[in-house]
Amino acid sequence: MPKRPAAKILHDDRPLELEFGETLPSLEIAWESWGRLNSDRSNAVLVLPAFSAHCHAASNAAAGDDSPGWWEHMIGPGRALNTDRWFVICASLLGGCDGTTGPTTLHPDGSGPWRGRFPVVSIRDIAATHLRLLDHLGIATAHAGIGSSMGAMQALELAIIAPERFRRVAAISGTAYTRPATAAIRHLGRRAIMSDPAWKDGAYTDEGPLEGLRLARELGTVFYRSKDEFNDRFDHAPINAPSLRGLTFDVQSYLAHQGQKATMRFDANAYLTMSMAMDLHDIARGRGSIEHALQDMRPRLLIGGVPEDRLIPLVEQSQVHRALEEVHADHEWFTVSSPVGHDAFLVETEAFTEVLGRFLDAS
Amino acid sequence: MPKRPAAKILHDDRPLELEFGETLPSLEIAWESWGRLNSDRSNAVLVLPAFSAHCHAASNAAAGDDSPGWWEHMIGPGRALNTDRWFVICASLLGGCDGTTGPTTLHPDGSGPWRGRFPVVSIRDIAATHLRLLDHLGIATAHAGIGSSMGAMQALELAIIAPERFRRVAAISGTAYTRPATAAIRHLGRRAIMSDPAWKDGAYTDEGPLEGLRLARELGTVFYRSKDEFNDRFDHAPINAPSLRGLTFDVQSYLAHQGQKATMRFDANAYLTMSMAMDLHDIARGRGSIEHALQDMRPRLLIGGVPEDRLIPLVEQSQVHRALEEVHADHEWFTVSSPVGHDAFLVETEAFTEVLGRFLDAS
Repeated sequence: MPKRPAAKILHDDRPLELEFGETLPSLEIAWESWGRLNSDRSNAVLVLPAFSAHCHAASNAAAGDDSPGWWEHMIGPGRALNTDRWFVICASLLGGCDGTTGPTTLHPDGSGPWRGRFPVVSIRDIAATHLRLLDHLGIATAHAGIGSSMGAMQALELAIIAPERFRRVAAISGTAYTRPATAAIRHLGRRAIMSDPAWKDGAYTDEGPLEGLRLARELGTVFYRSKDEFNDRFDHAPINAPSLRGLTFDVQSYLAHQGQKATMRFDANAYLTMSMAMDLHDIARGRGSIEHALQDMRPRLLIGGVPEDRLIPLVEQSQVHRALEEVHADHEWFTVSSPVGHDAFLVETEAFTEVLGRFLDAS
Repeated sequence: MPKRPAAKILHDDRPLELEFGETLPSLEIAWESWGRLNSDRSNAVLVLPAFSAHCHAASNAAAGDDSPGWWEHMIGPGRALNTDRWFVICASLLGGCDGTTGPTTLHPDGSGPWRGRFPVVSIRDIAATHLRLLDHLGIATAHAGIGSSMGAMQALELAIIAPERFRRVAAISGTAYTRPATAAIRHLGRRAIMSDPAWKDGAYTDEGPLEGLRLARELGTVFYRSKDEFNDRFDHAPINAPSLRGLTFDVQSYLAHQGQKATMRFDANAYLTMSMAMDLHDIARGRGSIEHALQDMRPRLLIGGVPEDRLIPLVEQSQVHRALEEVHADHEWFTVSSPVGHDAFLVETEAFTEVLGRFLDAS
């Protein structure tokens, strides 16, 4: 896995009781920051990573890592997340493979990495780790929490779990709960990994189930894009003599490239853990209904998405919007049209700079 | 694989030159028939199986198999394919696992079954085997050829390759060529099978890559249905304590059931071979364009489909319809609305009885 050289590690010796019953005896949280925390500790903006993201949201020369981050064009002096004004922080995900406690970190009993023994975690558990970071920094109330996709799931949970700790929360391209059709896809991706004998019930000590990981990611790629995009982009005629084992169609090389990238980015057990956390996302669980979950909302919420999104369609964001109206919660609704679809927030810098800049800066 | 006890086997010692270069030294074709061939051999109706079908299209008490066939309600006295009038015939697919030459049949060199050595075959090659059966039966011109889905691919090819041998051809829920988005899905299904170590490069001698076959079929199931259907049908909340290895969501048991059924139905190498044949389907290949391919059409064609079809959308059938208009070919266009979508022709007996009965019986 790539190192995050600018990451600081918070060692938190308090146990974390997980939503589904197990307890992590202690936590490590890898995080980075940009800008300066002001004297009354009121200017923190917490960025919540999506599935393929981590604490290195932007280049961080001050911390010794000037490589671009995954949200490079949004964070910095004069940018949407203006580091002249805001103290921007971002922590890697619980259960992931970017420095925060997860399957690749050491089990506290000294038996080596957690690997397949790592428990199921939920978005609520991930949200709890972000609160631990705020505790550590002495931040009683952050100015804002911002996330898109899986990050929006965390943003919604934080607004519900800790309404007093954020003045504003932006949940972009998210959903109140994961639908069965989406869970079915992720389930098959997990099946692809767990069916690979190199997975070894999660106990691999080498590079692990790379073929399963590739297949899982290729499957995600096919599902997350539209048929039209594939049909426009690729030729339907064979590019070589047809063969089961060889390269017959050009769409195969595109998929293979996407799959290969995943093997350089993900640990398989971390992929499984985060995939499951997304499938279990449901803000209504144990809270009666979506409206009940949102009824004591105190931060001002920003909810919106991309009409072209085919992974988490806009109707899922507008469901949250309608529920917030129902309970008379303070919130804004927006849409940004983009051919990129679900991942627009990574790419449509100008549109999201306007939306988020205004949301953060409004008094 | 299930036996087809009513199947007759045609041994054809003529080699078959395959479209992509290899030659099969001889052929076996498993077929069944219902009704009687008339004295001038003019009343044959050839049924063309889809991917999951075979020669046992209907119960066949006369041949010793009264188990229901895959198109049971359409074939028989007084039915759409009226066996009081028509001599209905159906042959299992080349490259499949239902008695016609394929990966599970014996290689002519005495080295055992073909298995992974079986060559890539195309829809055109499969169509050629149907013509061999007509030759064998002394049928110069059949009254009709009828297929849906992969069967429609064969129907279109037969109308192009052998326009003088059919008076009528019905191609239902088919397409002129397979789109990259569809090929991408089938490619991943093949990857799932070939990544299973039990596949052994196709040379397995036991039950083979069952886990890969299951995963391939589950993947197909997710893709061939709509998101809305999955979201309506299944609960999003966990039905058990969440676990990566266990049953967490009810949609998983549905998928597992579909996958398990596939292992009782398919040989993995046959699945691969037929999957590839569908991806290679393209009536324009080597013929300039779709219109060129269809320009010397002599049989009357019936083209149509199901607006709710999400596997091969109606737009792909209407493309063929428009091309036939373009070249002034004799044809009819129809649609049958059904919530079942792509598989409607297996289920909507009443609607298809009307459409096909009229098409066959019109003078």
